[in-house]
Amino acid sequence: MNGDAASAVPDTPQRTETDDVVISIDAMGGDMGVAEVVRGMGMSHDKNPRLRFILHGDEAALAALISRNAPLAARTEIRNADSVIAMDEKPSKALRRAKGSSMSNALEAVRTGESEVAISCGNTGALMAFSMLQLRKAPGVDRPAIAILWPSANPGGYNVLLDAGADIRADAEDLLTYALMGASYARNASGLARPRIGLLNVGTEEHKGRAELHDAAGRIAAASEAGEFEYIGYVEGTDMASDRVDVIVTDGFTGNIALKTAEGTARMIREQLEEAFSYSTLSRIGAFFALPSLKRLQKRIDPRRVNGGVFLGLNGTVIKSHGGADATGISAAIKLAFTLAEIGFSRRLAERVAAIAPPRAADDGTA
Amino acid sequence: MNGDAASAVPDTPQRTETDDVVISIDAMGGDMGVAEVVRGMGMSHDKNPRLRFILHGDEAALAALISRNAPLAARTEIRNADSVIAMDEKPSKALRRAKGSSMSNALEAVRTGESEVAISCGNTGALMAFSMLQLRKAPGVDRPAIAILWPSANPGGYNVLLDAGADIRADAEDLLTYALMGASYARNASGLARPRIGLLNVGTEEHKGRAELHDAAGRIAAASEAGEFEYIGYVEGTDMASDRVDVIVTDGFTGNIALKTAEGTARMIREQLEEAFSYSTLSRIGAFFALPSLKRLQKRIDPRRVNGGVFLGLNGTVIKSHGGADATGISAAIKLAFTLAEIGFSRRLAERVAAIAPPRAADDGTA
Repeated sequence: MNGDAASAVPDTPQRTETDDVVISIDAMGGDMGVAEVVRGMGMSHDKNPRLRFILHGDEAALAALISRNAPLAARTEIRNADSVIAMDEKPSKALRRAKGSSMSNALEAVRTGESEVAISCGNTGALMAFSMLQLRKAPGVDRPAIAILWPSANPGGYNVLLDAGADIRADAEDLLTYALMGASYARNASGLARPRIGLLNVGTEEHKGRAELHDAAGRIAAASEAGEFEYIGYVEGTDMASDRVDVIVTDGFTGNIALKTAEGTARMIREQLEEAFSYSTLSRIGAFFALPSLKRLQKRIDPRRVNGGVFLGLNGTVIKSHGGADATGISAAIKLAFTLAEIGFSRRLAERVAAIAPPRAADDGTA
Repeated sequence: MNGDAASAVPDTPQRTETDDVVISIDAMGGDMGVAEVVRGMGMSHDKNPRLRFILHGDEAALAALISRNAPLAARTEIRNADSVIAMDEKPSKALRRAKGSSMSNALEAVRTGESEVAISCGNTGALMAFSMLQLRKAPGVDRPAIAILWPSANPGGYNVLLDAGADIRADAEDLLTYALMGASYARNASGLARPRIGLLNVGTEEHKGRAELHDAAGRIAAASEAGEFEYIGYVEGTDMASDRVDVIVTDGFTGNIALKTAEGTARMIREQLEEAFSYSTLSRIGAFFALPSLKRLQKRIDPRRVNGGVFLGLNGTVIKSHGGADATGISAAIKLAFTLAEIGFSRRLAERVAAIAPPRAADDGTA
């Protein structure tokens, strides 16, 4: 990291359009290997010359790959890492050997302020554990959350869902914090001035669902003016992709199961569609003529284009890219990282939460 | 109801293939109206002459409809009901005016033993509340559950998911009961000798998820031999439609959200597929040639063909048909009702649960 790039990440969100934006990337841990990561960086850099990278991993391997792309090499600093956290490693075990790993080093560059956003394709549990330890929770946040973009009928094409699986529990205060963080994310990443927030439940009627949800509903409704969002009440699983809501708030257990259920459903329909189109000569002719339409559809629901769960509620922003992300997926995560880094998102979010969420009992020293 | 039909429902599951099977149907409360219900009955009766019906609702309207189908009329007894429970009625309010409603009357025919299975397209919450009150919980069951069939890659085409929304809570003992009931349902309705049971969680690793799930996992594994099922461990949302599991066990909050999320995802893909095929002349030509394939696909994932959530854990079986079910959907629910009634399913299930599930503290008078 040289002094120029570091000074390009000031403490205030105001930037001129000529400033560099530095992204810290853990090159290791993805299923597709480091070459895909470097290819994704190249794709992003071709489109956006303001990007600079700090790349963490096996220095020799990374240097050989980067050297083939001279303009990218000039904008990338490689930092050697001694170890890699495995995809299936238990977070508690990974924590004991965090030091010197590419994942930990990528986060360290955010902690020191050299970069504002870190990206990793590695183990989600370990990445969250390392992030909590190295970056610490933002003031007023008790449980950080993972926000994802969910393909929807909205004009922008997506809804935000959080928590997608950072924590299996969330009480009413946590759900209020998620609403504030989700609103801030939708405002800053998707440009919605006044996002519509819904609370995920088993029915839209007021009397339905768990008691903690009724408590959370009251808190979220009360915070809507100060939080500059609209609270639309309970939403159901069928609303996940609807255009009547922008941000869907739920605990990480429910959010994770909803997300993976949708992935499984989409995969099954895709497989059956392929089977249907290869069934007979007639269906193969149909598939030939329908190909442009099917490709357009596939592009629209392509999970690689919305690659990146974002960890919210930390002192810095962390993007968890899909473990199987290819170059297109990596490039999508970098684009999101650029948007969030450029506006100083993590600081904006922390200010918003601190201003609205009541301090936790444990935070003010009374309990 | 005449004496012949009543005597055709003996107390033992052994039947000869010439016995009548009586189904009690709440004709009111569906979105499509009573004519669809009667049409569905006609479709079923054409295929299966062993069916007899007790039909509850507005006698004048039902008699006029039924009279147009003489063979069906000869097999149907109409019972007038004074009121209908509305679709959006709060269960607690509905309970106060249950008496004399078509829904309550349909369940009453099961309570008295005239019929073994009741079907209703009405309000799920009210139907469960009435069922608990009129039929009572089976011995050993603390929380009845709703089991649904989930389109999957399995040879039979479906997995069983429970609880799909009967109760928003379930502790470890309830989850064990769900495993036993789900295994019994898969064995009797789908003919699987030794169903594979999975417990829905946010990851398949043993250390993941909530503490009550770890507790439930131990209990379910311990009961697998006596319950004649195979416990395969945790499954994720992506496994919902997979062929590595037959029965997926979860609490009713999570199950309901997973179900509705999958419905919403499938609907969105279907809409985008239609949009893709009407985009250009070429895509419309493609759609023309692909039509047979698309129709085959649609038939395969048609929710009407798996119509019917089944209430398990009561003294009698209740099938909740989809509120928007048309004649095809009603007929599918009747087919399922016939299968379950013919084998004396609710008694078999109760025997299985009573034999394996440890009695609740509250059941044995010690607490």
